Amino acid sequence: MKISDLGEFGLIARLRARLGSRFPGVLTGIGDDTAVLAPPGDRALLATCDCLVEGIHFLRSSSPPRDIGRKAAAVNLSDIAAMGGEPRWMLVSLGLPPETESGFVEELYEGLAEAALKYGARVVGGNMASLPGRLLVDVFLLGTAPEKGALLRSGARPFDLLFVTGTPGDSAAGLALLRAGGSSRCAERARLVRRHLAPEPRVAEGRRLASLGCVSSAIDISDGLVADLGRLCEESGLGAVIEAERIPLSGECVAASRELGQDPAGFALFGGEDYELLFTAPPGSEKAVREALAADGLEGATVIGAMTGAAGVTVLREGRPVALPARTGWTHFRSDDEKDAGHETEGAAG
Amino acid sequence: MKISDLGEFGLIARLRARLGSRFPGVLTGIGDDTAVLAPPGDRALLATCDCLVEGIHFLRSSSPPRDIGRKAAAVNLSDIAAMGGEPRWMLVSLGLPPETESGFVEELYEGLAEAALKYGARVVGGNMASLPGRLLVDVFLLGTAPEKGALLRSGARPFDLLFVTGTPGDSAAGLALLRAGGSSRCAERARLVRRHLAPEPRVAEGRRLASLGCVSSAIDISDGLVADLGRLCEESGLGAVIEAERIPLSGECVAASRELGQDPAGFALFGGEDYELLFTAPPGSEKAVREALAADGLEGATVIGAMTGAAGVTVLREGRPVALPARTGWTHFRSDDEKDAGHETEGAAG
Repeated sequence: MKISDLGEFGLIARLRARLGSRFPGVLTGIGDDTAVLAPPGDRALLATCDCLVEGIHFLRSSSPPRDIGRKAAAVNLSDIAAMGGEPRWMLVSLGLPPETESGFVEELYEGLAEAALKYGARVVGGNMASLPGRLLVDVFLLGTAPEKGALLRSGARPFDLLFVTGTPGDSAAGLALLRAGGSSRCAERARLVRRHLAPEPRVAEGRRLASLGCVSSAIDISDGLVADLGRLCEESGLGAVIEAERIPLSGECVAASRELGQDPAGFALFGGEDYELLFTAPPGSEKAVREALAADGLEGATVIGAMTGAAGVTVLREGRPVALPARTGWTHFRSDDEKDAGHETEGAAG
Repeated sequence: MKISDLGEFGLIARLRARLGSRFPGVLTGIGDDTAVLAPPGDRALLATCDCLVEGIHFLRSSSPPRDIGRKAAAVNLSDIAAMGGEPRWMLVSLGLPPETESGFVEELYEGLAEAALKYGARVVGGNMASLPGRLLVDVFLLGTAPEKGALLRSGARPFDLLFVTGTPGDSAAGLALLRAGGSSRCAERARLVRRHLAPEPRVAEGRRLASLGCVSSAIDISDGLVADLGRLCEESGLGAVIEAERIPLSGECVAASRELGQDPAGFALFGGEDYELLFTAPPGSEKAVREALAADGLEGATVIGAMTGAAGVTVLREGRPVALPARTGWTHFRSDDEKDAGHETEGAAG
């Protein structure tokens, strides 16, 4: 049934029945003018929003609705992860072409609710508006700050070590594979495509890192390692130097890059949407960081460089500085940003 | 300068400088992965989102950017008002055509921040995404619940009196005037158009009503008096009867209706976007409600009917039930919802 036949109220009633509304910490969920929530009295509150637009951030042809929902949740969960926080409550604002099928919206919502729940958050409200021509999924996520304080971008100190979780570049390699149009039957390719379409936010890693007390700053890599490092540097009033060879690349990323005739380090440095955590901690903290993550069976972190007192990001390759492209990572509003136009978009290596 | 030239980061830096980021209760504002907020420990938290879409909720030709911002803020502030709550923090998610001028976005943001501040809220974060073809303004608003508890839709009891603030119908009459294409030079017309383009959320009224302790339920009239009363009835598991003659109409609304050859009661009953409060309180509470609002110099409230045990909304006119159209108020996703297509849209009387 099309949502133009079912109507807004009918669709909301369906979603409400499907999602439920009685959760701990939720006094009133979907169905009133606002959600009424009971935050723990001793914690600060984290609030973020991020949206996915059809044709810009995803294509309906390559993303089933459940995956779109999961990814919209993941990009927001990743922001809470980068603060070391605990995701709690999600509101979802949808822009929907009137001809959308209600089953599509229900599956999208299930993807959102599923990803939220996996990391401890509940969908407690939202909005739907008619948006002819494009699907838009806007997520508003609330979390609570860690007891020892949120991991800000602004806390890095000169000579702090710079760490990254996981293997950056996978998402951009996955996107490049999707673009090249190959099948995803091979397990290695499938893993990279999955890393692009269904990223896993590092929520447990962020919380563990925040609990250590020694992590001085953090950001998630949504727009590319170099671009997001630039932001962290700016907020901390510092610079950074990284050694490209130290960035851990997955075997799949290296293999795919070879096949595509591309540079895997380019994917890792300038590709976006990895949703890994980039963070700093004082010299000598490497062992503590590694052991804490390993003890909880979490994704590991690797030292890739250090903070410097002088501003700016320097990338060394075989000891020599690499010229950085003016456009590193994803910046919106460029005319070549249409994903379906076949041009380079966010997540693509420069 | 176009935002496609300035880029996302450049635009964010401008907005951040313009809006500021150090406010009470805000530990970290714009510029980190999430906002970090310090809610008062003894109150529940209210969270809502609502969005305006170009061509559906507004036309650029009749709405300057500052007004679009104000209205996007107002529709969300009104939801907090309907809970009797205190607006606190706003996040703004924009979908922007790449050719948008940065000055346009800055003015839009100023309208948002100005309306928020007027009611005690601050803009603490947001997001911008490329949305070719249409401007979309999605607002997420957080507030705190009143000490005596939020005014829910579900609290009405049989035989409670039904009140409405202000003069419903003005917004729909203003929209009808805009559509009829007349100039707004005459002060009366200008006031109605203003009521449509720049509604004032009843935040102070909601807080005062919540503090009384006798108000049993409330909702704001965004989709039309009858449609929103239907929702309140549904959530309370009750029905309601209203007498159309009791609905207070403004002199301007009556005059405009006469001029347009339309029924002013139709504007009041089925027109949307009034953002007045519809609420219930026990029999005998009329004087207390009136006096409380008058003492604070607030918008008055009028008894227009009562709750009933039997489900459904009955509208009496000269003592006889009026046949209610199947479509009362604004429901999204209908093919005639395009504002610029010249068809009937939200806010229009049936």
